[in-house]
Amino acid sequence: MKVNMMHGAGGEVMGELLQTLTKFTHNNAGGIGLEALDDGAVIPFAGENLVFTTDSHVVRPIFFPGGDIGRISVCGTVNDLAMMGGRPIALSCGMIIEEGFETANLERIVASMDEALGEAGASIVTGDTKVVERGALDGIAINTAGIGIAKRIVRDNGLVPGDVIIVSGTLGDHGLAIMAHREGFDLGEQIHSDVAPLSKMMEKVMEAGTIHAMKDPTRGGFASAINEMAKKAGVCVRIREDQVPIRKSVKSAAAMLGIDPLEVANEGKVVMGVPAMDADAILAALRSHKYGKDATVIGTVTTGAHVIMETAIGGERFIEPPMGDPVPRVC
Amino acid sequence: MKVNMMHGAGGEVMGELLQTLTKFTHNNAGGIGLEALDDGAVIPFAGENLVFTTDSHVVRPIFFPGGDIGRISVCGTVNDLAMMGGRPIALSCGMIIEEGFETANLERIVASMDEALGEAGASIVTGDTKVVERGALDGIAINTAGIGIAKRIVRDNGLVPGDVIIVSGTLGDHGLAIMAHREGFDLGEQIHSDVAPLSKMMEKVMEAGTIHAMKDPTRGGFASAINEMAKKAGVCVRIREDQVPIRKSVKSAAAMLGIDPLEVANEGKVVMGVPAMDADAILAALRSHKYGKDATVIGTVTTGAHVIMETAIGGERFIEPPMGDPVPRVC
Repeated sequence: MKVNMMHGAGGEVMGELLQTLTKFTHNNAGGIGLEALDDGAVIPFAGENLVFTTDSHVVRPIFFPGGDIGRISVCGTVNDLAMMGGRPIALSCGMIIEEGFETANLERIVASMDEALGEAGASIVTGDTKVVERGALDGIAINTAGIGIAKRIVRDNGLVPGDVIIVSGTLGDHGLAIMAHREGFDLGEQIHSDVAPLSKMMEKVMEAGTIHAMKDPTRGGFASAINEMAKKAGVCVRIREDQVPIRKSVKSAAAMLGIDPLEVANEGKVVMGVPAMDADAILAALRSHKYGKDATVIGTVTTGAHVIMETAIGGERFIEPPMGDPVPRVC
Repeated sequence: MKVNMMHGAGGEVMGELLQTLTKFTHNNAGGIGLEALDDGAVIPFAGENLVFTTDSHVVRPIFFPGGDIGRISVCGTVNDLAMMGGRPIALSCGMIIEEGFETANLERIVASMDEALGEAGASIVTGDTKVVERGALDGIAINTAGIGIAKRIVRDNGLVPGDVIIVSGTLGDHGLAIMAHREGFDLGEQIHSDVAPLSKMMEKVMEAGTIHAMKDPTRGGFASAINEMAKKAGVCVRIREDQVPIRKSVKSAAAMLGIDPLEVANEGKVVMGVPAMDADAILAALRSHKYGKDATVIGTVTTGAHVIMETAIGGERFIEPPMGDPVPRVC
């Protein structure tokens, strides 16, 4: 068998590849390990919880409306730490650069990473650089790994019936920004990626109330994240279509491209399940932060299975996990 | 300016690129950070020292005599942790895979990584996979980052006059194994990479005596590592040519290829400076482990500057830091 693009798309097909990649027998350092397939690992250490995660970034183009490969490299890892309840402390940065890459672009990427680090309250403390010959890579690939500290671990499998589902803002912005920009749409430049570090916001939110489960809906989008959360917890999630926040420009671009905005990556959003009694406090905490100002309740958790969309006209349909991401190289 | 192959070769030219890559203002988490350009960072945490490091691997071919890209990915990071005095705990693994890559090869790589993890006493606890379209990468690139715990931090800048310089075994094996294999030399298959995880050996060695400074001589080889150590400490290092262990087959291949075996990468060796009174105990500890059985004293540290080779016939010459690695994509 050969690896194909669908294997990297964050959808159902990726499971095949993960079967190979999770054959490590040395896969856990005493806490939550590779086998959990959560946003990060947890390593109990000196009475505290270290959170550890990694992401490689190959997004194209490297500069896009609202962000660039540098910003996404920092935010992707910071957000994975935040999704586990971790406050980011230190990041590593491994760059692979193609011979001929403009150093001016590299400087721009480093400056963008540095800005995102400042926002997140984290530092890049160690790095590595490899240069490969022309043609062996198209431009640049950036890996970051990150260490965080979590007072309280939050998993992606903790939804319980009665929970309220909250999203921190509009969905589909990042994936459609990348796609519209690639296609050269006129409205393309109106759609901006939401790429942002959520750690400071999440620190406040976690003080405001209990979060049973959360996840950042990156590759595979909201559809993938919410299905994974429902499946892992063995519950049914009901989403109200008229409550799901999607920008008009995103809806238009998605319609033109034949893409479901719920199936494309977000890079600055969180989906969470919280006890109904905590929902107002958590919403208030989210809305008090610029990255959560459009936060809203979009559904509820019940017993059963699947993710069900209650449409505006009173119908019902499943929100299926996407087979793959319709936008390749989105992060 | 454009990035060129010399920028990634671990030699003097790499400094230009590092000037860009070390422009991060958020570069330290309270201990040893990016600015130190050591083998890893140190993060003080809960009264302990966390060591954190990363390496991306692009070695070609991906399977070579004595190892493969999987083994080198684990050992590279494990050894960087060990060089800081850290016992490896947890690694991350970020893979970028080209569409069309054989999953059988991926399984072989994962199995090899798992074996090296077992030897090192570490685990891969978190991972990420990206698939890129055909032509965007040649095959596979693997990043690992690692977390270790150090009772006692060892730096690469601590040489003091009077120290004895020890190497843990023969030099040049990895670089020449890669190069001879690529060139299709008949004797090629006789030269094996030394790629190995040194963490268990180093735990014993650190109990045997004091180590003032150490480094693993990877890209740029021994010549690069010893010059960096001498320069950072502001001392002179004198090496006795007849004491430097190099295999006959490595010498032959190096002569045929016109390559200095002291300038090519090793992936399972350590160079250290130790107080003369501790040298015997440290040598004994090294030699008691299979990866240190050929350990030997090769020189001494004096006041002054530069690295000087005392030749077998009584002459002297500088060991210069190489401009770049003569073997591209060696790790």
